[in-house]
Amino acid sequence: MSSILIIGGSDAGISAALRIKELQPRASVTMLVADAYPNYSICGLPFYLSGEVPDWHQLAHRTLEEIQSAGVTVQLNTRAVEIHPKAHTVVTLSDDWGKGTLDYDRLVIATGSEPVCPPIRGIDERGVFLLHSMGDSFAVAEFLRRHQPRRALIIGAGYIGLEMADALTHRGLAVTLVEQQNTVLPTVDAPMGTVLGHTLATQGIDVRTGVKIDQIEQTGHSLRVLGTLTFDQEVDMVLVVVGVQPVTSLFKQTGLRLGVRGAIPVNRAMATELPDVYAAGDCVETYHRILGTDTYLPLGTTAHKQGRTAGENVVGGTAQFAGTLGTQVVKLFELAVARTGLRDHEAKAAGYAPKTVQCETWDHKAYYPGAQSLTFRITGDTRTGQLLGAQILGHWQASVAKRADLFAMALYHSMTISELMAVDLSYTPPLGSPWDAVQMAAHQWLSEAGKPTD
Amino acid sequence: MSSILIIGGSDAGISAALRIKELQPRASVTMLVADAYPNYSICGLPFYLSGEVPDWHQLAHRTLEEIQSAGVTVQLNTRAVEIHPKAHTVVTLSDDWGKGTLDYDRLVIATGSEPVCPPIRGIDERGVFLLHSMGDSFAVAEFLRRHQPRRALIIGAGYIGLEMADALTHRGLAVTLVEQQNTVLPTVDAPMGTVLGHTLATQGIDVRTGVKIDQIEQTGHSLRVLGTLTFDQEVDMVLVVVGVQPVTSLFKQTGLRLGVRGAIPVNRAMATELPDVYAAGDCVETYHRILGTDTYLPLGTTAHKQGRTAGENVVGGTAQFAGTLGTQVVKLFELAVARTGLRDHEAKAAGYAPKTVQCETWDHKAYYPGAQSLTFRITGDTRTGQLLGAQILGHWQASVAKRADLFAMALYHSMTISELMAVDLSYTPPLGSPWDAVQMAAHQWLSEAGKPTD
Repeated sequence: MSSILIIGGSDAGISAALRIKELQPRASVTMLVADAYPNYSICGLPFYLSGEVPDWHQLAHRTLEEIQSAGVTVQLNTRAVEIHPKAHTVVTLSDDWGKGTLDYDRLVIATGSEPVCPPIRGIDERGVFLLHSMGDSFAVAEFLRRHQPRRALIIGAGYIGLEMADALTHRGLAVTLVEQQNTVLPTVDAPMGTVLGHTLATQGIDVRTGVKIDQIEQTGHSLRVLGTLTFDQEVDMVLVVVGVQPVTSLFKQTGLRLGVRGAIPVNRAMATELPDVYAAGDCVETYHRILGTDTYLPLGTTAHKQGRTAGENVVGGTAQFAGTLGTQVVKLFELAVARTGLRDHEAKAAGYAPKTVQCETWDHKAYYPGAQSLTFRITGDTRTGQLLGAQILGHWQASVAKRADLFAMALYHSMTISELMAVDLSYTPPLGSPWDAVQMAAHQWLSEAGKPTD
Repeated sequence: MSSILIIGGSDAGISAALRIKELQPRASVTMLVADAYPNYSICGLPFYLSGEVPDWHQLAHRTLEEIQSAGVTVQLNTRAVEIHPKAHTVVTLSDDWGKGTLDYDRLVIATGSEPVCPPIRGIDERGVFLLHSMGDSFAVAEFLRRHQPRRALIIGAGYIGLEMADALTHRGLAVTLVEQQNTVLPTVDAPMGTVLGHTLATQGIDVRTGVKIDQIEQTGHSLRVLGTLTFDQEVDMVLVVVGVQPVTSLFKQTGLRLGVRGAIPVNRAMATELPDVYAAGDCVETYHRILGTDTYLPLGTTAHKQGRTAGENVVGGTAQFAGTLGTQVVKLFELAVARTGLRDHEAKAAGYAPKTVQCETWDHKAYYPGAQSLTFRITGDTRTGQLLGAQILGHWQASVAKRADLFAMALYHSMTISELMAVDLSYTPPLGSPWDAVQMAAHQWLSEAGKPTD
């Protein structure tokens, strides 16, 4: 039986380990975990910090015992610091036992990502936090408990920034949300970002777009935050959440080239260029199914699928990662916003002739109580009618996420927007329409952008 | 410009008319409507009778004016009574103007369905209702208003029977629901029907399965209902909802053969064997995409798609009806139950080697408040791993319907259950899991029924 070493205990690492044990129960699998928290739901941190998840232990997808009872040897608080690809060894550094060396037949690198630290003077001041790991989260929780801050400023209005704005408002803090771009959540189109911005403002959040923060200074018990033009605000704490970058120092030592945004290049089998070394998750380049090229798009969903693929191939399989579609969703107060596929400018850059059409529909028949409005933005290729992407915004209980997933399924199969009309989707007045909302949006695109015979 | 006649003003007829005007705005389109209610949402009748939809006018998908302003000539209260295919004429009978004759270049038959009237003695008694048309519905509403019945008995626990049990309970009536089969909603597997039955009982409904009603007699102001063995109950009103059958008397006169359950045979272009005559909706045989054969499965969703296909072809198009997948959903109190594709016995009859696996998952991460349990029953072919069908039961706000639609999309594309794991679906803790519930259910099927390398 081969001996398999996995570096990293989050989504990709765990998925690889479980897949290996599923296919080859007798394989020897060792997993190095840099901290004490294997297989935690990092995406759940905002809900822990909001108080909605009272105990952080609840964030564990699986307990350590469950992982161990699957037959995986777990070494906590242990980092890999060197790889020797020819010797098939890894040098480790454990908080408890210091340096060590482990042999491997096959290796899976799943070291994940770390927060981007923007060039802001004073970013190391007390009360300023990056948010990514369980450790970061404990530091924030401890600060909230001890200092009872009343005013928080969040730098970055991406998914985590928005969720934290929601979370800290939920806790009763006055929140300022600062974003360099002109609308919040710049990963969706501006009309949707604008709606989200209004929602945040309605909830009492001070939304400041088009603002770049330059400096944070300690002033007595407060932090003074300075930025673009006259931006100048005094708060009690600052969160910096402006994105993540791959953790690749280990791989870098091998002298091999790095890829997009410094991520580890892999093929669709999740193999690196090093013999017997696979990589998966937030540390790797990700194949994009619609672009047909590699990109950097670190998401838990993708990490799981890549880890599963790597795990299968490590024990002799021939799995291929199907590719990301860029499917994402976030809940924000009463709203959810989701996207999948390409936006207009992304499609144009990739050589398509896109057109994006926006429309509003009800989530179910308007005569049945509780109907919610959904806003769709559908992007399709005007030459072929191919669906390229979809964005949806609406009430979080109006199946926004699963409707985005229907578009993801369509994208997976390279469907035309016209063909989407042909699929037999479910209907009952409290939950949909004879043509589901996704089909009404498709029909609107066809009316405005397609040929009538589409 | 050709002159097109459409017989029927419900889902299929309207879809055909609108598609024709979309493609050929100058085409002459005349639509005969048997009653005064074109394009009404018949599926909404239970919600009108429950009181949730206060005004029946709200049930109109479109108003008469909207249809007319699309350029469609509508003749209300007019039936077609004879077709003369060679002469290309139709004899009509109008409530207002008596007999008439209309010429056509192309004809679309969309006469729909009518309730099956089971052989029960006394079914014509006052207080006994069939429920299908707007007219039926007004009769029930009038009876409810005038006689203020306290006890209702519903014969048939299919979709409409269940919705009416919910609706009349909502109105404060004591409801008895009688079903000949051993569980309610026999279109889903017994374990799910059993859960639905318990839910109905919890809501105070007297559920009587395995009971066939033989006789209804008037006894003073009440109705005495007698059935299997000792079944004997006195109630104030009876609803009979045991299914529907195609309305085909018009077509029958042409001497052509009828198909499954007496429905009009059509090809996938929705053309009948008569020259220039198309048919669509509840009156036709329906192509089943997984079975590859025709079946009878009258649903509004299907009627719309067939009507659209017929409409396109009537003006020279080459559209093909993609086929039904048998996708259906119903909301019942707090629950929704949906199905798509084949159930185990249906798959077996069609020559597959099916296995059905049941499992429970959460609709979203359990640590986030409000997680709901979903029950899945996944049917796949053990020889090929192909997905054959899925059934889902859970809280109606847990995206049961749209998750069923994800399986419908997979069925549409003949996916294997394994491939379902590869699709990039959305995730945020309040709305899903890193592997969505549909993928967890797929994984469970693979674990129990698939080969491990699937």
